[in-house]
Amino acid sequence: MSLTIKLRITPSISHLNPNPKTQKNPTFLRTPIYHSNKLATPIVFRTKRMASHVIKSCLIEPDGGVLVDLIVPETQRGFKALEAEGMEKVRLTKIDLEWVHVISEGWASPLKGFMREDEYLQSLHFNTLRMENDGSVVNMSLPIVLAIDDETKERIGGGKDVALVGPDLSIVAILRSIEVYKHNKEERIARTWGTTAPGLPYVEEVITSAGNWLIGGDLEVLSPIKYNDGLDSYRLSPKQLREEFDRRQADAVFAFQLRNPVHNGHALLMNDTRKRLLDLGYKNPILLLHPLGGYTKADDVPLDVRMEQHSKVLEDGVLDPETTIVSIFPSPMHYAGPTEVQWHAKARINAGANFYIVGRDPAGMGHPTEKRDLYDPDHGKKVLSMAPGLEKLNILPFRVAAYDTVAKEMAFFDPSRAKDFLFISGTKMRTFARTGESPPNGFMCPGGWDVLVKYYASLQAEEAAPAVVSA
Amino acid sequence: MSLTIKLRITPSISHLNPNPKTQKNPTFLRTPIYHSNKLATPIVFRTKRMASHVIKSCLIEPDGGVLVDLIVPETQRGFKALEAEGMEKVRLTKIDLEWVHVISEGWASPLKGFMREDEYLQSLHFNTLRMENDGSVVNMSLPIVLAIDDETKERIGGGKDVALVGPDLSIVAILRSIEVYKHNKEERIARTWGTTAPGLPYVEEVITSAGNWLIGGDLEVLSPIKYNDGLDSYRLSPKQLREEFDRRQADAVFAFQLRNPVHNGHALLMNDTRKRLLDLGYKNPILLLHPLGGYTKADDVPLDVRMEQHSKVLEDGVLDPETTIVSIFPSPMHYAGPTEVQWHAKARINAGANFYIVGRDPAGMGHPTEKRDLYDPDHGKKVLSMAPGLEKLNILPFRVAAYDTVAKEMAFFDPSRAKDFLFISGTKMRTFARTGESPPNGFMCPGGWDVLVKYYASLQAEEAAPAVVSA
Repeated sequence: MSLTIKLRITPSISHLNPNPKTQKNPTFLRTPIYHSNKLATPIVFRTKRMASHVIKSCLIEPDGGVLVDLIVPETQRGFKALEAEGMEKVRLTKIDLEWVHVISEGWASPLKGFMREDEYLQSLHFNTLRMENDGSVVNMSLPIVLAIDDETKERIGGGKDVALVGPDLSIVAILRSIEVYKHNKEERIARTWGTTAPGLPYVEEVITSAGNWLIGGDLEVLSPIKYNDGLDSYRLSPKQLREEFDRRQADAVFAFQLRNPVHNGHALLMNDTRKRLLDLGYKNPILLLHPLGGYTKADDVPLDVRMEQHSKVLEDGVLDPETTIVSIFPSPMHYAGPTEVQWHAKARINAGANFYIVGRDPAGMGHPTEKRDLYDPDHGKKVLSMAPGLEKLNILPFRVAAYDTVAKEMAFFDPSRAKDFLFISGTKMRTFARTGESPPNGFMCPGGWDVLVKYYASLQAEEAAPAVVSA
Repeated sequence: MSLTIKLRITPSISHLNPNPKTQKNPTFLRTPIYHSNKLATPIVFRTKRMASHVIKSCLIEPDGGVLVDLIVPETQRGFKALEAEGMEKVRLTKIDLEWVHVISEGWASPLKGFMREDEYLQSLHFNTLRMENDGSVVNMSLPIVLAIDDETKERIGGGKDVALVGPDLSIVAILRSIEVYKHNKEERIARTWGTTAPGLPYVEEVITSAGNWLIGGDLEVLSPIKYNDGLDSYRLSPKQLREEFDRRQADAVFAFQLRNPVHNGHALLMNDTRKRLLDLGYKNPILLLHPLGGYTKADDVPLDVRMEQHSKVLEDGVLDPETTIVSIFPSPMHYAGPTEVQWHAKARINAGANFYIVGRDPAGMGHPTEKRDLYDPDHGKKVLSMAPGLEKLNILPFRVAAYDTVAKEMAFFDPSRAKDFLFISGTKMRTFARTGESPPNGFMCPGGWDVLVKYYASLQAEEAAPAVVSA
């Protein structure tokens, strides 16, 4: 069907770099994060002759047939940077830059830049994009757009190309053959979230303050996006992931998206999936444990703590290091439930996963102004199972797992003996960790729990510290 | 490709029935409405042997391949009515009944009843339905759902089938193999309209007061839905329209949806389309002038007045009676812009039209709380042109027509001499008609304009009449 690529892997040590966040906070000791297999940095791949080939895992084709890669080849960087200097500049926010990262590595294949209006409208209304060559559709549930304000629009005028400038003022990318169109925020929010209630995290963080125009075009990124937070080596691109799956000769890859610490309920889902795949006759199913690494809301556990926690889960043997790859999914989080879960699944197709686990209320949260879940907790898996463009992905819907007080372990919820089960919400878990109280035995492996306790202790220490008032 | 059916047509005279509305209001004289060709009533078809065959116009297949027809055959009506008597009853509003009409005649083919949750979610998120037999998708942009309140849900309990009862308390239909699920109004509104601003007409009229549950199932309608308003003979079903197109040996059918009086700008679009189709080599293109007949907002011109106005437009020769069919589209109006225009187009596929005219801001209106159009006036045609499931329909997007003060006629707007053009909005037209002032010569044919003047005069007479206070 497609080639299996074997590459010599050069160990990466960049994950040993000190983390600025934890340096500031000495109560939280940073240790190297576990990774089941050391992986090469992008540079290693780039210098190989074969890296210029289209890489297809034999398991699943990227959307549109070809994995998009918008990083300018090293030989052209100087020239392109010079060209960009002469263009009108558009400033990116931190979250815009996360989207540049996402688009540049092909997570959103076949998307080749920020959406023009045709793509935006298709995404908003149909959650799909139609391929021009053959009329087929791919899934694209979130508008991936770049907003600009009136002044920037005015400044750009009738220009054809612009340079995108990062928050640190360096030129990051070129956006070519641009199209500027109206940013109707109300409509975007209503159609993406199914509500316009105030208090949606991504809306408040990104959209409310954004400009009234959107600018689409073809992206050329001058060099790979790096965060220098000690975690860059875990930010494997779809191409690198595909190469790694091929290297391991995976005959099935099942992705698990998460933005929370891994408890034993999650582990149950993942281990049960592996067992099911083995029962189906697969010989070497590989788990892609794929925490979301972009923007998350303030009360979510930060990425570095989660990565630390995940490493403990593997160290403690709750998940098998031999059949698990831990990597970071660089997308920002929308908290848009059934609409967003499609994006989470679609991006994993591009990363080479052919199975996707979906549990209760994916990408959901509480309604910002009413006392209820924002989304029906079952809608995510229903919508995902019916989503156009995701037919080639095997969706694995799961029952919710909860703490079985009889078996004293996390287990699939059994409605026939509902009273035996204890649901430990994120809020409850945080309360446990904050007060130093232990959760029920078997809820989470001790090493992983310890990471959370330390994190919340450090937060409280910070809060308790006297405020420094600058003169 | 498919059979052309020739039927003997029995003239219908039911359109001469007095209209209850105009009876009440003697200042507005009802005259028979022009129809280019008398058409048979459904009963005539039904008693023919061939009526049980699937009728396919040679021009375009109905969605799902077969035109849905949910009217119980006459021979089974007594039995089914008896069966329905024994079922739990669900009361329909006037607008629910319009939807029963729409579904029963196959305008929403392949939909066979009010949506179950799977269909609802697909409609809401993707504007499509996936066919179970071959995985293909059809367009379905509006949720066609039936709401019930807590008490009704309680009363139905775990029942399998229910009887639907019209506003006049007669049993109208059976809904079989029902599924009851949550009616999240906020999400439905946000995803359908792209806003949750107060003041959306369909929301205020239908959704706000509706129950918190939706009930889906397979519909069996005991007898064709009739309104007895003198216009029933103009309510041709998709099947009747297809038969009529075949009878006329149309080689192209172009549909024009409208909910307003026809002015010469509309006529320009329709006549220009005909000319274009002839230029393309079609020999006998037929215009389906297809006013929407279900719920419209209070300040729209009522259906009977519009039908009267349309008849004058044909009598005055603005449109050619020989190549025009005027019929009523029984759907209620959502005013949901780009989302709704897909429904308008999709329903016309089922009625046998293979060309669909779309102009500026279809199904649009002013934003209910802001001083702007609710939708970008160009989004309707863009979204329609890209909508999944409408690929087989030829979409004909048009430039806006306006009054050319130089040529003294309605003409396609020419931005290079914008100052020569006068836009006559619905509000402006109503003001003209209300004050007795004539619009510019060439805006509308005199006979048609006269109908509007009389209607607004009758409204003012009603408003001026002393209020009768009941004791």
